[in-house]
Amino acid sequence: MGPTDSPYTDLEAIAGLTLEEKASLGSGQSFWRTKAVGEIPGVLVTDGPHGLRKQEEKGDHLGMGGSVPATCFPPAAGLGQTWDLDLVHRVGEALGTECQAEGVAVLLGPGVNIKRSPLGGRNFEYYSEDPLVAGAMGAAWINGVQSQGVGTSLKHYALNNQEDDRMRSSSDVDARPLREVYLRAFERAVRDSRPWTVMCSYNRVNGVLVSQNAFLLAEVLVGEWDYEGLVVSDWGAVADRVEAVRAGLDLQMPADGGLSDAEVVDAVKNGVLDEAAVDRAAARVAGLATRATAAARPGTTFDADAHHALAREAAARSIVLLRNEPVGDAPLLPLTGTGSVAVIGEQARTPRYQGGGSSHVNPTRLDVPLEELTAALDGQGVGSVTFAPGYTASMVPDQALVDEAVAAAAAAQTCVLFIGLTDGIESEGYDRKDLQLPADQLALLEAVAAVQPRTVVVLTHGSVVDVAPLFAAVPAVVDGALLGQGGGKAVADVLTGELNPSGRLTETVPLRLADTPAFLSFPGEHSHVRYGEGLFVGYKWYDARDMEVALPFGFGLSYTTFAHTGLSLSADEDAVTATVTVTNTGQRAGREVVQAYVGLPGSAYQRAVRVLGGFASVDLEPGESREVTVIIEHRDLEVWDERVSRFVLEPGTYVVQTGSSSRDLHTFAEVEVAGEIVRLPLDLESTLKEVLADPYAGSRVADALPFAKSMQESGNDDDSLGGDMAEMMGAIPVGRLLGFQPSDDPAATKAALVDLLETANAQH
Amino acid sequence: MGPTDSPYTDLEAIAGLTLEEKASLGSGQSFWRTKAVGEIPGVLVTDGPHGLRKQEEKGDHLGMGGSVPATCFPPAAGLGQTWDLDLVHRVGEALGTECQAEGVAVLLGPGVNIKRSPLGGRNFEYYSEDPLVAGAMGAAWINGVQSQGVGTSLKHYALNNQEDDRMRSSSDVDARPLREVYLRAFERAVRDSRPWTVMCSYNRVNGVLVSQNAFLLAEVLVGEWDYEGLVVSDWGAVADRVEAVRAGLDLQMPADGGLSDAEVVDAVKNGVLDEAAVDRAAARVAGLATRATAAARPGTTFDADAHHALAREAAARSIVLLRNEPVGDAPLLPLTGTGSVAVIGEQARTPRYQGGGSSHVNPTRLDVPLEELTAALDGQGVGSVTFAPGYTASMVPDQALVDEAVAAAAAAQTCVLFIGLTDGIESEGYDRKDLQLPADQLALLEAVAAVQPRTVVVLTHGSVVDVAPLFAAVPAVVDGALLGQGGGKAVADVLTGELNPSGRLTETVPLRLADTPAFLSFPGEHSHVRYGEGLFVGYKWYDARDMEVALPFGFGLSYTTFAHTGLSLSADEDAVTATVTVTNTGQRAGREVVQAYVGLPGSAYQRAVRVLGGFASVDLEPGESREVTVIIEHRDLEVWDERVSRFVLEPGTYVVQTGSSSRDLHTFAEVEVAGEIVRLPLDLESTLKEVLADPYAGSRVADALPFAKSMQESGNDDDSLGGDMAEMMGAIPVGRLLGFQPSDDPAATKAALVDLLETANAQH
Repeated sequence: MGPTDSPYTDLEAIAGLTLEEKASLGSGQSFWRTKAVGEIPGVLVTDGPHGLRKQEEKGDHLGMGGSVPATCFPPAAGLGQTWDLDLVHRVGEALGTECQAEGVAVLLGPGVNIKRSPLGGRNFEYYSEDPLVAGAMGAAWINGVQSQGVGTSLKHYALNNQEDDRMRSSSDVDARPLREVYLRAFERAVRDSRPWTVMCSYNRVNGVLVSQNAFLLAEVLVGEWDYEGLVVSDWGAVADRVEAVRAGLDLQMPADGGLSDAEVVDAVKNGVLDEAAVDRAAARVAGLATRATAAARPGTTFDADAHHALAREAAARSIVLLRNEPVGDAPLLPLTGTGSVAVIGEQARTPRYQGGGSSHVNPTRLDVPLEELTAALDGQGVGSVTFAPGYTASMVPDQALVDEAVAAAAAAQTCVLFIGLTDGIESEGYDRKDLQLPADQLALLEAVAAVQPRTVVVLTHGSVVDVAPLFAAVPAVVDGALLGQGGGKAVADVLTGELNPSGRLTETVPLRLADTPAFLSFPGEHSHVRYGEGLFVGYKWYDARDMEVALPFGFGLSYTTFAHTGLSLSADEDAVTATVTVTNTGQRAGREVVQAYVGLPGSAYQRAVRVLGGFASVDLEPGESREVTVIIEHRDLEVWDERVSRFVLEPGTYVVQTGSSSRDLHTFAEVEVAGEIVRLPLDLESTLKEVLADPYAGSRVADALPFAKSMQESGNDDDSLGGDMAEMMGAIPVGRLLGFQPSDDPAATKAALVDLLETANAQH
Repeated sequence: MGPTDSPYTDLEAIAGLTLEEKASLGSGQSFWRTKAVGEIPGVLVTDGPHGLRKQEEKGDHLGMGGSVPATCFPPAAGLGQTWDLDLVHRVGEALGTECQAEGVAVLLGPGVNIKRSPLGGRNFEYYSEDPLVAGAMGAAWINGVQSQGVGTSLKHYALNNQEDDRMRSSSDVDARPLREVYLRAFERAVRDSRPWTVMCSYNRVNGVLVSQNAFLLAEVLVGEWDYEGLVVSDWGAVADRVEAVRAGLDLQMPADGGLSDAEVVDAVKNGVLDEAAVDRAAARVAGLATRATAAARPGTTFDADAHHALAREAAARSIVLLRNEPVGDAPLLPLTGTGSVAVIGEQARTPRYQGGGSSHVNPTRLDVPLEELTAALDGQGVGSVTFAPGYTASMVPDQALVDEAVAAAAAAQTCVLFIGLTDGIESEGYDRKDLQLPADQLALLEAVAAVQPRTVVVLTHGSVVDVAPLFAAVPAVVDGALLGQGGGKAVADVLTGELNPSGRLTETVPLRLADTPAFLSFPGEHSHVRYGEGLFVGYKWYDARDMEVALPFGFGLSYTTFAHTGLSLSADEDAVTATVTVTNTGQRAGREVVQAYVGLPGSAYQRAVRVLGGFASVDLEPGESREVTVIIEHRDLEVWDERVSRFVLEPGTYVVQTGSSSRDLHTFAEVEVAGEIVRLPLDLESTLKEVLADPYAGSRVADALPFAKSMQESGNDDDSLGGDMAEMMGAIPVGRLLGFQPSDDPAATKAALVDLLETANAQH
């Protein structure tokens, strides 16, 4: 792949450079900087994506040191649960502004990988098990950041769905899940938001390192998706820079002291690597520098308070109410006029609001749930708020803490218990081993619930946990996910009813780890993982196998209730438009996330029972009705047809249902979608049944293969074999029928058959 | 692959032949005969394997016409349930004798394919979901047949696990399931019984037609398993004879009128095909003819009565008692002194005892259950036996028949209801769509059970059916599988208690089709099927996912009870020997099938919770104890290590449990097995953790890569990233650490590192 003239390349800047200079552009100057060469400046990139992790220029070798303060928005595990693309866009804008203030050219995000297994160590950095949610969120985020003249890096492209052996493991996947599940979110983000850079992932795909994978970097990304920007390696992802440049990688990060630059130069001089590839990479690095320099707004400042408020807003919409059963005659939440409250749990005082690893942000401020809740409850005139930590971050059981917490819980009229995963459990770099909360916290939960039936659990986690112990113990559970620096206030507002929770799960919560689709192939072994569940990732698996789940994809309760009525559908060239009336049938204002699921019963392709086709959200006052429109784009209904190696929109009567989750569907309607029935050319490997079905060949095959049709027709006259002989015959390729040939001139029979098939193909 | 001198080739016979003559040996003369060329005679082959399907010489083009009478033994679906290798060997001997009597040189069987999905249309021709059962049964059968100087054809090699699109579909499978599940039974049969021929299957494997698959035909079969016999195509399996001969196919069947012979000759003349490959094929065909001619025993007769008695014996041991709940104070079975009996069901009068397709045999005699049961009950002085058909084979509901049956059932003191799958449902050529019995029969079942609580169901089927409706309706269920021509008497004997049932399931019965491992990938689409469940086929799936099943692998009740005690284990070079004392703790003589399951907790390889490692059966009088020895061969414990492309016996403490099924385990013991820990050479893609673990390199890596070790050790000093940095660092390949290189001479650093790794490798 040579250089092209595009808004993302700067051919002029590299025109006068030597081979050595061009090669040197393709690797980093330092951990966080690209090289300055000639007139081309180096630019600063920083980790993200839910905040800037800008390290002081003189960072350590592995980028692990401290970073400058930045607003810590909810990580993707939280942000995804907002289902609010406008909000995500605004978060992106704020991040872009902070980048401008810090002189950052590219913020390294978003991550749109699919959560294949709930155990994935980096799941908290990703949005969903569903490619539409992940792709739409990623595109909104990119458009937000880039609106501020700051670049993004769509990552981790691709199939980096686990941490175990992540730098070597090959994600072995078939064409349909590759295209329809794992690449779909990337494709949407590339097409809808044109990220300045794409970051290739550490892993292999079907045996080839992504950093050196011409199929993914050149054929798909550039050739099919028309991507013109820069491809940067994840930090340390390149094993062979020459192979990487040849495959389509532009920039190797971080900095290897010039080692691989020299290897690239040698390769060109030895005729092993085409210099055009080096030119392409250099032109893109130069293009990034030119673009970033032009867009830079030195002296930009940002309003930390406003960003904190936005972080709170995002946190509030990220919270999912998982359970709210009546205690006495009313649901336990919201806590209004509930008398004394015991707040239990170290995480109320020392909140965990993001995951570990490269995305770890040093926040500008931090809302502490205990403080926020105390203030809010005080405002309600509650008698007293007490606190007991109950456990420590160490996960070492401490009975004294438990006893103290139980006493506090028993003495109060209501208990709010903060529990959740700890830093050591979920982090970049390794996967989880199970879905359980720390045992010491579960023991505390049991003890507290035993003395205080009015207990609310606030759950902190970046990846799915087993909720069965919570649901067995307490009447109310608030999913606090990972909420960023504004989460403390948001949780307090939800608990007190100041805010009506409206987030929705973007990942199924299974009953057991053993139920999960990838259970037997995650994380693989010997640097290979077979994506054997194919298309059936997340809710598609549980639906297809008709399995119960703890909480379905898209689930979330509210303090009010909603009705969907009058679904109507229309189809045009690009999309199905679904319109449904949503009514707030309860007593409080609230937001409904309208999810449109689509199926095609009787499809000629293997399909999920239903897939999310679109979503929209609507805020409604009590009693208010509004018409909500959900666009279901054809591209999300297309299937990858491996026989012709492209996406195909299958024609047919599609079923659309809107609902409040993937298993709480309220409406049903059908719509005809025009599409394409793929016709393959007939050949000797076409079956007799296929040939007979052809309008031209079908009526003439008996001439070319005199005995074939009569055999098929007479097959069932003789039942001495006891089966359905016509069906057995129909499955034989016509060329193989020649192997049952009694004719005197079999070569002539074969020639006539080939002629017939060619003539039939020519009719189309 | 050229010709070799072996007991299976006749180099002398082909020495004087022309190219044309040699080529012509490689395809059939007629549907069932090889060609006679010069001094080399043609030989007759016939379908099997549970009986001869010898067609009159002037057969039809597709071999679908009638065949001469032959003893119809239980198909593999029944025979496998005997778990009795000696009995299978005796059946083989009888079949061999019948072949000699009919002048048949090769009987086309056994089929040892794994039952990947219960829907497989040809499952009734196969033994098990477990490769040890399938392979051991196949080897015993081959040794029995071949002991009579008659050849066999081990089929369908390989991964022909469905009928849908069977002539084109590619079974896409990874190396471990390929080796440990799907090839293992073939490997055992080849090594333990040296079949005269192996029949290649119709399908593709990993994209390549098996008939043209050099990996399977040359590399594995000949290269690894030292197979020296003939490879014959399944009838019509060859698409390109030249490719097939090159890959290792010797004989294309049936007869194409010389079409492909000419193509082979042309290919040799054009330099496209090495003549040595044609020589090899011709020498093997000649070798088969020579061997068969020498072994022929013209004038052989067989004792049809004795073979019928053997068919009855085999049928008796094939029957599995699935359910026998008390009615009143005793189990319903056996039927002793039960008063009048209503026999219901057309299948009692018109038994179904084999499946449809090429294995369909024209039996010498046929035991009819109704007649046998009437005679047996008469012998017990039962008042009366009545009969009502209840349904027809057409599956069209007939209320008059139901009413008649219900009246008969109500009027009798006990009812025996024969139901089961019909011919159209399970056959070669197509797969089933569900696990259900015909709806009209289920309706009859409900109606009969409603009036007669003392109802026994006798179930006829060649593949797994949903037993839930049976278990919900009646207290006793006898699995009559497909039992061959002696099944009627065997069923009667089991019902009356003349025989104590002792068969065991060789396939798990799931609760639902949706629970089955291949549910979402069977039968694939567009001529590809991904074996995504990997190693976890059959019980291994349900155990690994901790799922309930309707009936576990190995299950079967008896009229008596058994205890296992005192398991002891010893290991030598080749096997673990398990010795256990089995006691008949009940009141009747009976046979226990002792199943030894093996696991390796903490294995470094992905493994099933337990696998069948060996089995043995023992006949015991009431109160009698015997010591039973089960040999667990190391080869069945080995795993295929893809890193080194060979089987490896992992050292460790293996757990052995003996039981009456895979989920009814009575004993537990552990044994140390010596084995091999695979050491891979270190290279730049070895992780820091792997290098640090090396005895030589570990202590020296800090010299070669000064910052690496210190980085790893100091990683957790700074917790600003919130995760476990040491673990993250340890997973980085050492070569990639060079990409984080701050040294002044990175090329020297790289060279030193490479030196270190090479030196470390040299220490081993």
